[in-house]
Amino acid sequence: MSDLSRESVLNIKRDLLNGTPLIVYDFDGREEEADMVFYGGAISWKSINLLRKDAGGLICYVTGKEEASAIGLNFLTEEWKTHPIYRDLIKRPSYGDYPSFMMWINHVSVSTGISDIDRAKTIKELHNLMTDHITNKEEFFLNNFYAPGHVPILASRGLDIRRGHTELVAHLAELADLPKSMVIAEMLGEGKSLDRRKAELYASSHNLIFLEGNEIIKE
Amino acid sequence: MSDLSRESVLNIKRDLLNGTPLIVYDFDGREEEADMVFYGGAISWKSINLLRKDAGGLICYVTGKEEASAIGLNFLTEEWKTHPIYRDLIKRPSYGDYPSFMMWINHVSVSTGISDIDRAKTIKELHNLMTDHITNKEEFFLNNFYAPGHVPILASRGLDIRRGHTELVAHLAELADLPKSMVIAEMLGEGKSLDRRKAELYASSHNLIFLEGNEIIKE
Repeated sequence: MSDLSRESVLNIKRDLLNGTPLIVYDFDGREEEADMVFYGGAISWKSINLLRKDAGGLICYVTGKEEASAIGLNFLTEEWKTHPIYRDLIKRPSYGDYPSFMMWINHVSVSTGISDIDRAKTIKELHNLMTDHITNKEEFFLNNFYAPGHVPILASRGLDIRRGHTELVAHLAELADLPKSMVIAEMLGEGKSLDRRKAELYASSHNLIFLEGNEIIKE
Repeated sequence: MSDLSRESVLNIKRDLLNGTPLIVYDFDGREEEADMVFYGGAISWKSINLLRKDAGGLICYVTGKEEASAIGLNFLTEEWKTHPIYRDLIKRPSYGDYPSFMMWINHVSVSTGISDIDRAKTIKELHNLMTDHITNKEEFFLNNFYAPGHVPILASRGLDIRRGHTELVAHLAELADLPKSMVIAEMLGEGKSLDRRKAELYASSHNLIFLEGNEIIKE
């Protein structure tokens, strides 16, 4: 399912479990964007701090479509398809795929929801819900989180349907034999997305693994 | 409607129109948070860049409830009240008020939607829609924007109902005789919200006006 060697996959897994970020670039001709990626099980407030300072994009939680469905969530593009007004807002972005957004949430225990500590708490609690043995996950989710909040949940439709960062990093979790529970943010430069060369430079100067979409999905 | 002198209001209006941010602290005992605030009509990609680097919170567009209603939008707390599952996610945050979120949008012309240039473009187009003479604003909005996107729209319920940053800055626009079209982001410190003292220091060292909720709403 990928071009990555067994050794590369083990290095990726080691970094994810250690709370070390990876840099994942999608494809030339698509978004042409590099995302900073953490494993949801290794998030601390310092990871959120790094995501907002060194990446700068939207800090999102990524899981699979089935995992999200198990806690009661659906794509907003699906939810709003039948809304008398909002259905007209559902359009394909310029890069071609429908957005992966499901819901913006906070854990009930947070203060304002936006600080590094609060966002890390929301994500940690969501990760625990996704990976713990809980009988009724939907009920647990609805009781312990609220919306609208400050952490967007993105869900992977699978790489056969969409080739965005959401699907790439969900697949990366699978390759590393980890639950689909990842945290991503776009790396931004001055004005525009950080270009590929600068994202590679950032990765090498911080000793981070740099991956591109073609390595992750090449059969 | 406020404790501010005529001269203070004129200085606030001058800074807003110049694209200079203000720092607005809410209240001791509420969120205890300082937001960086720009006027929507003076946003450039450099303002978005400053909001994400020096403030660090969620970069949101603020308008009034009536203005939002004119383009077809409603509070998500209202929209989801009748949803079979999502209604259970509607809860009051720890600071007491229901969230002001309506919709996350992008302008149709943007690339990925998240870069400084893209977010500034979405906001500029939204500001123009809000302030230009357009016969059918709802139709124009639905044709020229899509959702879910990267710029959250917050709407003021009015200071008699809610005393959050959304209502404070919408009221500030009124005091300055400007349309309710503002852009805000929470100022974050290491881990937590930036404390009041540090927010005041930031304001004074950057020659920015610092306001607190009590000055804005004192009758």
